[in-house]
Amino acid sequence: MYTDVSIEQVNEAMSRSAEAFSSYSKFSLSQRALLMKAIAREIEALGDELISVTMRETNLPEARLKGERGRTIFQLNSYADACERGDWLEARITTAIPEKVPPRPDIRKMLVPIGPVVVFGSSNFPYAYSTAGGDTATALAAGCTVVVKAHPAHPETSEMVAGAIRKALDVLQMPQDIFIHLQGASFAVGEALVRNPHTQAVGFTGSYSGGMALFNWANQRSQPIPVFAEMGSVNPVFLFPEKLEADPAAIAQMYAESITLGVGQFCTNPGLLIGLDSPVLDTFKGMLAEKLQQIKVGKMLHEGIAKNYQQKSLLMLSQPDVSCITSVSQDVINNSPEPILTEVSGEVFLKNPLLQEEVFGPFSMLVRCKDQDEMAAVARSLAGQLTSTLMATEHDYTANASIADIIASKCGRIILNGVPTGVEVCQAMHHGGPFPASTDSRYTSVGADAIKRFARPLAFQNYPDALLPDELKNANPLGITRSVNDIPTSQSL
Amino acid sequence: MYTDVSIEQVNEAMSRSAEAFSSYSKFSLSQRALLMKAIAREIEALGDELISVTMRETNLPEARLKGERGRTIFQLNSYADACERGDWLEARITTAIPEKVPPRPDIRKMLVPIGPVVVFGSSNFPYAYSTAGGDTATALAAGCTVVVKAHPAHPETSEMVAGAIRKALDVLQMPQDIFIHLQGASFAVGEALVRNPHTQAVGFTGSYSGGMALFNWANQRSQPIPVFAEMGSVNPVFLFPEKLEADPAAIAQMYAESITLGVGQFCTNPGLLIGLDSPVLDTFKGMLAEKLQQIKVGKMLHEGIAKNYQQKSLLMLSQPDVSCITSVSQDVINNSPEPILTEVSGEVFLKNPLLQEEVFGPFSMLVRCKDQDEMAAVARSLAGQLTSTLMATEHDYTANASIADIIASKCGRIILNGVPTGVEVCQAMHHGGPFPASTDSRYTSVGADAIKRFARPLAFQNYPDALLPDELKNANPLGITRSVNDIPTSQSL
Repeated sequence: MYTDVSIEQVNEAMSRSAEAFSSYSKFSLSQRALLMKAIAREIEALGDELISVTMRETNLPEARLKGERGRTIFQLNSYADACERGDWLEARITTAIPEKVPPRPDIRKMLVPIGPVVVFGSSNFPYAYSTAGGDTATALAAGCTVVVKAHPAHPETSEMVAGAIRKALDVLQMPQDIFIHLQGASFAVGEALVRNPHTQAVGFTGSYSGGMALFNWANQRSQPIPVFAEMGSVNPVFLFPEKLEADPAAIAQMYAESITLGVGQFCTNPGLLIGLDSPVLDTFKGMLAEKLQQIKVGKMLHEGIAKNYQQKSLLMLSQPDVSCITSVSQDVINNSPEPILTEVSGEVFLKNPLLQEEVFGPFSMLVRCKDQDEMAAVARSLAGQLTSTLMATEHDYTANASIADIIASKCGRIILNGVPTGVEVCQAMHHGGPFPASTDSRYTSVGADAIKRFARPLAFQNYPDALLPDELKNANPLGITRSVNDIPTSQSL
Repeated sequence: MYTDVSIEQVNEAMSRSAEAFSSYSKFSLSQRALLMKAIAREIEALGDELISVTMRETNLPEARLKGERGRTIFQLNSYADACERGDWLEARITTAIPEKVPPRPDIRKMLVPIGPVVVFGSSNFPYAYSTAGGDTATALAAGCTVVVKAHPAHPETSEMVAGAIRKALDVLQMPQDIFIHLQGASFAVGEALVRNPHTQAVGFTGSYSGGMALFNWANQRSQPIPVFAEMGSVNPVFLFPEKLEADPAAIAQMYAESITLGVGQFCTNPGLLIGLDSPVLDTFKGMLAEKLQQIKVGKMLHEGIAKNYQQKSLLMLSQPDVSCITSVSQDVINNSPEPILTEVSGEVFLKNPLLQEEVFGPFSMLVRCKDQDEMAAVARSLAGQLTSTLMATEHDYTANASIADIIASKCGRIILNGVPTGVEVCQAMHHGGPFPASTDSRYTSVGADAIKRFARPLAFQNYPDALLPDELKNANPLGITRSVNDIPTSQSL
């Protein structure tokens, strides 16, 4: 239905985006917020037609998509508020001390937009991490123009959402090129977008191989640029004995739901459960397998993902000394996904790095450790993760403090007695993590701090008040919180 | 006098640093501050012996070195205060809303230390950007252990300062491996340090080729790591007509001093002066050349730098249509540096990218533009810069607003009616800039915000108060400013 844009069209789009950047980057915070809120309204105005198109394109059920649409609208509105509040600007003022030797000049600093941003839509969040998703919203908040490459798994959804953005720009009489939408399934389109000299940052949510391709292209440019690629993880869950003993059935229920949520197609899906060899671990394992088998999961997003799930699951099951706890009918695997729980000893897990790889879908692996030392070794062996979870009483936690430290050092978010799925959109959220969970562990892709990905500091030295941006003027006309001579304040000077 | 460490010694040092990190990363903010202040005291205690050793190793005069030592001590003390104040932690608390559907959990986030940091000492700042310089101080403030590779141009100075750090650790009975000092002039040592898997970030101030070697090694690792390389720039100065007309002599005096300050061996040295063709530009040019010739500059840091200055200057002078305004005696060039002012038309400058390259030393190039359009084209042609300066009245500024915008988009600090040399150590400073001025335009290497280079966010979800780090506990026992449900406050919850 949609054909790839040509490389010429990519380059022409980036030139238009750069041209629009020169005006949009000077839009006030409140103008940017106005745009973001208008986009939210126009998406809402697409109504049920959008939902039904996306259901057809993604196999996702109506309730999930309505929830995700709500989240996308919430993101746009709450990031718009954060944009106006201006904390993300990190405004700093150091006033002059003329009598100092040498004299200290007046210096003021704030974050300024980095330039045109390329956003790659993700397949598993057709709204919240696609066309008008978190990356687009935060780039617009930062004052950057955006070029989106639609995900080929939901091109029509993407086209509709792009139409809503264009309408918002139109209603507000803002330049259309603030936002440009391109269709393209080929690697060549992605490469051209990343390598175009106008592109100044890249946002991506998807596979490790996809993210690393973008990262490498970006670093091979004559001017390297930041790539914010969220590449998923296995989100290890550590089951400590006192907690597990207290109520194995409740934990099994909780995790059966988390593993199968959205057919396991979440980057925070718990793909690894690590416990200590014990009768209660066996009890838990049996309960979890039973519950997983009772849950009827839906279809996966598209055939490619379903096929990948099948292949990756079989690869895991074919590894030496990996056993399958759920009953898997070969036939069923070949058609639509069924939840799979596998089991392996700590010793085998430590020897086979392949067992650490993500199986995208409702798959989890229980690692049975013979003692705490082996559990610590397993924790130490893990690559960077988006999340890690500890199912632990306070006593478990303090008795295993050194394991908790190792776990914390490997992830971006550490959860106590909960599930990793469900990423709250709020300022304290960190969604990201040490490599390879993301290409830049210093930035989140969820929450208003994600705006900072698309900005860089600029210091103004010895500027008269009239020539300073409003954010840094003495009177603080925007009423933002600034650090003045090291003290945070929203007062004027 | 000093031989390179072996690759085995590099790897052994990184293992020790990683081991020390597991304890140092848990040191409280006040313990870190204590260490930094103790280092400052021990450097002071080295007294005049340190100064005389450095004078011998670097050719820098006593007054300059005493000033730089004072700055180094100030950095350690002021970053220690900033470390304790904790603003850099970006502590965020989003409290739970159990009645929300789904329930919102309690989430709290702060920056945590990234891991062992490798610091490469710079040649032009033997104290302030070497062994116990800004990179080391901010890494220690962030809670990271540090491995310093001494700059081979001042190994004895570096050894003495390392001794002061070791003594501070000893006095405070802290693990010696928090700081490790290595000598090494070869690329192999640098490469082994960057590629070692324990290394989690790199700080560097120096040449483009040196910085890019580190950057590429870091990105070729199986786990890429951030490199904060400050690689210098030509720091363009735009001379606008009304301002220049008002007092060409004063501006010529100011710039003659700035160009020759520290024998031009500052990364913020003004290497490019851009003006509009006019009689007053001729007047200014004559005055500047005359003043430059009156200034007796000292010896350069080492023979390699002097030789490079000679070669680079001659290369510039050999370019078509570049004229030399100062009288350069070939003999003098061959021995010790003399300040050089060259001149070129805007047209020639735009055609020859080589003219944009930095000549490290007391060298500057005047670009004569035929009109404002050509000046805008010159501004647009520039690569990323640490600083840009506008010599402009308010009327000049507003009449050239679009040129000012272009200039601002290319640099990390924009100065009005001043000189780029002299980098104030304060919170509002940004020392860094778009590539190739630095490898990461989002981070400063001067001012307390530089601490953030060596930290990453970690979110704690659903943690009971007792298990949270002090920085995030309800009572706010450290009294730091935190954002609680989007509102900055230092109150307890």
